[in-house]
Amino acid sequence: MQSMNALRKVAETPPPVADRGGLRAAGKGRSLTLTLTLVLLLGAQLASPALAQDAAATGAETVAAGAAVPGEVVFVLNTLLFLISGILVFFMAAGFAMLEAGLVRNKNVAMQLTKNIALLSIAALVYYAVGYTLMYPGDSWAVAGWLSGAFPSVAVMEAVGITAAGASDITYAATSSDFFFQLMFCAATASIVSGTMAERVKLWPFLIFTAVLTGFIYPLQASWKWGGGFLDAMGFLDFAGSTVVHSVGGWAALTGALILGPRLGKYKDGRTIPMPGSNLSLATLGTMILWFGWFGFNGGSQLAMGSVGDAADVGRILSNTNAGAAGGAVVALILTQLMYRKPDLTMILNGALAGLVSITAEPLTPSLGMAALIGGVGGALVVFAVPFLDRLKIDDVVGAIPVHLFAGIWGTLAVVLTNPEAQLLVQVYSILIVGAFVVASSAAVWLILKAVSGIRVSEEAETTGLDMAELGMEAYPELARG
Amino acid sequence: MQSMNALRKVAETPPPVADRGGLRAAGKGRSLTLTLTLVLLLGAQLASPALAQDAAATGAETVAAGAAVPGEVVFVLNTLLFLISGILVFFMAAGFAMLEAGLVRNKNVAMQLTKNIALLSIAALVYYAVGYTLMYPGDSWAVAGWLSGAFPSVAVMEAVGITAAGASDITYAATSSDFFFQLMFCAATASIVSGTMAERVKLWPFLIFTAVLTGFIYPLQASWKWGGGFLDAMGFLDFAGSTVVHSVGGWAALTGALILGPRLGKYKDGRTIPMPGSNLSLATLGTMILWFGWFGFNGGSQLAMGSVGDAADVGRILSNTNAGAAGGAVVALILTQLMYRKPDLTMILNGALAGLVSITAEPLTPSLGMAALIGGVGGALVVFAVPFLDRLKIDDVVGAIPVHLFAGIWGTLAVVLTNPEAQLLVQVYSILIVGAFVVASSAAVWLILKAVSGIRVSEEAETTGLDMAELGMEAYPELARG
Amino acid sequence: MQSMNALRKVAETPPPVADRGGLRAAGKGRSLTLTLTLVLLLGAQLASPALAQDAAATGAETVAAGAAVPGEVVFVLNTLLFLISGILVFFMAAGFAMLEAGLVRNKNVAMQLTKNIALLSIAALVYYAVGYTLMYPGDSWAVAGWLSGAFPSVAVMEAVGITAAGASDITYAATSSDFFFQLMFCAATASIVSGTMAERVKLWPFLIFTAVLTGFIYPLQASWKWGGGFLDAMGFLDFAGSTVVHSVGGWAALTGALILGPRLGKYKDGRTIPMPGSNLSLATLGTMILWFGWFGFNGGSQLAMGSVGDAADVGRILSNTNAGAAGGAVVALILTQLMYRKPDLTMILNGALAGLVSITAEPLTPSLGMAALIGGVGGALVVFAVPFLDRLKIDDVVGAIPVHLFAGIWGTLAVVLTNPEAQLLVQVYSILIVGAFVVASSAAVWLILKAVSGIRVSEEAETTGLDMAELGMEAYPELARG
Repeated sequence: MQSMNALRKVAETPPPVADRGGLRAAGKGRSLTLTLTLVLLLGAQLASPALAQDAAATGAETVAAGAAVPGEVVFVLNTLLFLISGILVFFMAAGFAMLEAGLVRNKNVAMQLTKNIALLSIAALVYYAVGYTLMYPGDSWAVAGWLSGAFPSVAVMEAVGITAAGASDITYAATSSDFFFQLMFCAATASIVSGTMAERVKLWPFLIFTAVLTGFIYPLQASWKWGGGFLDAMGFLDFAGSTVVHSVGGWAALTGALILGPRLGKYKDGRTIPMPGSNLSLATLGTMILWFGWFGFNGGSQLAMGSVGDAADVGRILSNTNAGAAGGAVVALILTQLMYRKPDLTMILNGALAGLVSITAEPLTPSLGMAALIGGVGGALVVFAVPFLDRLKIDDVVGAIPVHLFAGIWGTLAVVLTNPEAQLLVQVYSILIVGAFVVASSAAVWLILKAVSGIRVSEEAETTGLDMAELGMEAYPELARG
Repeated sequence: MQSMNALRKVAETPPPVADRGGLRAAGKGRSLTLTLTLVLLLGAQLASPALAQDAAATGAETVAAGAAVPGEVVFVLNTLLFLISGILVFFMAAGFAMLEAGLVRNKNVAMQLTKNIALLSIAALVYYAVGYTLMYPGDSWAVAGWLSGAFPSVAVMEAVGITAAGASDITYAATSSDFFFQLMFCAATASIVSGTMAERVKLWPFLIFTAVLTGFIYPLQASWKWGGGFLDAMGFLDFAGSTVVHSVGGWAALTGALILGPRLGKYKDGRTIPMPGSNLSLATLGTMILWFGWFGFNGGSQLAMGSVGDAADVGRILSNTNAGAAGGAVVALILTQLMYRKPDLTMILNGALAGLVSITAEPLTPSLGMAALIGGVGGALVVFAVPFLDRLKIDDVVGAIPVHLFAGIWGTLAVVLTNPEAQLLVQVYSILIVGAFVVASSAAVWLILKAVSGIRVSEEAETTGLDMAELGMEAYPELARG
Repeated sequence: MQSMNALRKVAETPPPVADRGGLRAAGKGRSLTLTLTLVLLLGAQLASPALAQDAAATGAETVAAGAAVPGEVVFVLNTLLFLISGILVFFMAAGFAMLEAGLVRNKNVAMQLTKNIALLSIAALVYYAVGYTLMYPGDSWAVAGWLSGAFPSVAVMEAVGITAAGASDITYAATSSDFFFQLMFCAATASIVSGTMAERVKLWPFLIFTAVLTGFIYPLQASWKWGGGFLDAMGFLDFAGSTVVHSVGGWAALTGALILGPRLGKYKDGRTIPMPGSNLSLATLGTMILWFGWFGFNGGSQLAMGSVGDAADVGRILSNTNAGAAGGAVVALILTQLMYRKPDLTMILNGALAGLVSITAEPLTPSLGMAALIGGVGGALVVFAVPFLDRLKIDDVVGAIPVHLFAGIWGTLAVVLTNPEAQLLVQVYSILIVGAFVVASSAAVWLILKAVSGIRVSEEAETTGLDMAELGMEAYPELARG
């Protein structure tokens, strides 16, 4: 229960603008050691009065403590928000699975599906066993506290049927609901990696990496912000995880892709050989499921729904999340039409996803127009980054690096455009420190795995396809080859 | 904010039977100028005492103002209903995409997916920019008020973290949640059109039409009912939009199909050449996703969940919605067995959808048995209307005209069977006036587009398939042609 | 309304540990006639202090009556839980449809889809017409009371817009929401049967069986537990239906498979001929949709969300449900790797589902670790049971018997491991009595159908595929045969 201390403090000192880390750690009282100049980058130009009018009041008003809402009702409503949102974020696993199954070639589909369902399951067990308590160290300090046994090593929920009489425990939300919600974020991080490294990475090394990522790498860096750690103390803002989730998945994917190398035949004689996805219906379905689940991802990150202010904010967040996705898709549609004379469906899908990632660091304060612009820049990033990575011979099968890493960085920076509390240098610093940690730790794991067992299938297996070579079964066994 | 005035008035004068327009415009006070005889059409025969017993009390009881529920809790619960429902209605976009991808031929699947994700995104931006404020003109009058600048031209949400102290603002629900919910209805309307015109319409003209439909045509006519306009003042009842959403999409689709003409080779020597859908798994998935999302479509249209009466009503609505779908599917199953000796899966799917459309105008007042009957008539309409349209050489690729237009009209008329407040002539008048407006405005847009750029792909492109011709990519590139 | 009597009594006498039957029937006062020794089977070994610490307080604490939550708010929140959960359980129909469409061969896909949408629709009508009132007989006794006309034969919801003033009616939740929720459980039971009997059973006999199963067999046995019948009075515990739903579907499937016989060519010369599923992407999607929907299945079975204790319990249930699925998937992954040197994707999918079924009888009291173990045993059962059934020449196309029957029995027994109120002999007795009833009644129906019309398609139709033979259409008409 100790890991929920930070959470419970929220009722005492609500922050003026809700933010996941702020909410959790509001009572922590670490003084901000760095005083950084606030640079409102593009803000002056983009955030025209018309667009920003609804966001203007942001700093001035505070979240009402909900005097009229009975305490138990607040607890139930907050818990409900976590549970509904967690269920939606869970479903993103199906979105990733369909997106990736649709973007690999037929001969690797069954393996991609296997990786997706396995990583979801492994994340659930490992995050329970170590990740959750590492991520929320309470008053101790992360690894140290955890190693000292000061708090339990496995996640522990409330006893069955807790009563309201245990008053100190019911001021926020159920630990069980928080665990459920946070677990799904952790699983999403691992899903990002599987897409980039598809069609050539061995199954078991990938699953071992997944266990380390979801048990240690993700929770440790997440504790720096959402566990009330040093990035949070500095004032780093990342509402629902453009950096904490998406760029982490993206950095891990990039590191893996570099160590693993491109698919056989992908880059030949200075040209990039197209290897089109086998099923764009599934890829579109996956994108739409991700978009659907993202309402839980961002909406649930309000972390509270027991007052007029919180409910209206969740409404803002959902509307802005949708606008971000729409902006990303429309920009990718228009840019691919202009650049290639034909719209590119996979770019539009990735544009929508990049729009979603871009708005994730701050889905609350932008106006709808600004949210669409922020998402639109994310969509543009994808259109330019995909060929850019190919020029560098970094083979990212599904485009996860542009979508989750590049748009994640952009989204984290864009917080300064609409949230007056954001500090550009703190955002940049946090992006770099998280990136460095994830790249270094991921590289270490991949290199050890490479040395011990190898991480890449044989050339023969890659040519045959991982489905027959590693699983002995095909996703579409009755399909004649075209 | 002004656009929410009508919404907020609900707390003062709740109508005896909840109805979207009534709720919004309850305080408007325009006297009903037409006094029309209420004709209970089939009511006497069909609504047998056994079936109608639970509906009998409808007119007599009123929604309790929820004295025991604190005001802030009502606001939170109403907002929550909009948000959950909006998320479900959003997911209908995936349903439409899968249904349409499954019912076109392989060579046009990628294009159909592109249209679906693009229309969803364009609707989001255009409805934000103009549609929402056009639809809810507040005390001004629709276009006039909008042009005069009396209210903002873009949708504006509450400021971040509004407080309960701003009392006049918290009597209903968050504007942000209302915008989110209403946007998804607008997007659904556009999805209807894309299915009918599949496999031959050019991408960009279709997207321009979508922008006009979602930015102007849909919101304008919706304002007549849900914005508290003249149809609402007359007493027109359309709970969740059999007319306002579904028949509007259907009329636009019909107009487009007539101007566009049938697919090459569809009607030859007086015969209709079958062009079976390429993937009935996706079509079934799409139908089930639509059915799933419809619980938000109809349930959210209760517009309130902060009292015992509202919560129980949402339960009624969901149960009736399901019964309507079941009735439509079973009738289509039985009829196709009797008529063709073999059940027809696509007819059953469209039967379920027609059942859903039929019950959408009044999902609250029917008993479960009556809801199944109303849906069943919708299912029968589909079975007879599909060959009827083919005889007229109106080529509707996915059957959207029978499902959304014919069943939409039927559902709007069927309101008189169970809701004693409904007036048959007002229902008929509203169907006609909405139909005339949508047909005329849609035709104008399509004819202009036809004159300016053409709306139909070349014969060669149609034969090759839009995927290779317009996108340069295929949905299933590894598929050998059968 | 009478059928809700049992439901309403809950407010008077809440049971110490929430349980669906207990909640419904808490006031019934039938004395427990059998006094059975509680055998904590494996409990001592498996439930180590570390894992069981959060469950330890189970028996000691009681659910707070929620003094601080206004009565109307409790009603709204309970109703909301039923509605959200019912929507999620509805979506399991799409999960079953995709799972089964993915695991049959291409030539039978359209038929499998037809069966799934038809059974969902038929269940809705039949459960409305007879099932619901049979299942909740109120103070009367099941069939007798029903036949005597002491309560209405069709399900009846509250009148539109009931008021809080009708005080005796608002102490629990809306009947309409309960009907909606319970209906979806009934439909799920029927979905289980269709998978096992795929690829050879005739459509109409299958649909007639579905009508009897959902109208009579399921509701009658469900009344023994959830309707407050004799199994509930004995102290049988089955939180969300490992026995009441899953084993019932499993027994009906087993009985059907035995009477129907295996597919042509499945068992030849003592060998089992593999007939791999045609589309593992759809099978994976179906599994993930089922997992998603299961959060409603188990979470909604808490039956209440209007207090701190109930909300926290729902959080526990969702977290444990997820852990059970993860445990099942990981065990199947590891076991198939060890036994066959290659992981088997369909086994992993079925392992996840078996984990879900296993945790369904008691998702509340286990710790997360214990939930994963219980699910893991379910996953192991699948890996061993699939080849075991093949040795017995019982042809279960999708593996529904291991998943729903074997894991359902295991889950029902496993309740004794974590819930001190469970009595092993009562659990065993209930499993057997339910099994005997379902096997006998299902066999009677199948044998009558076999005598009257035959239940199996002709050899020619089976070889051609049911799609062309019985429907005259194909799921993938453009697919070249491989």
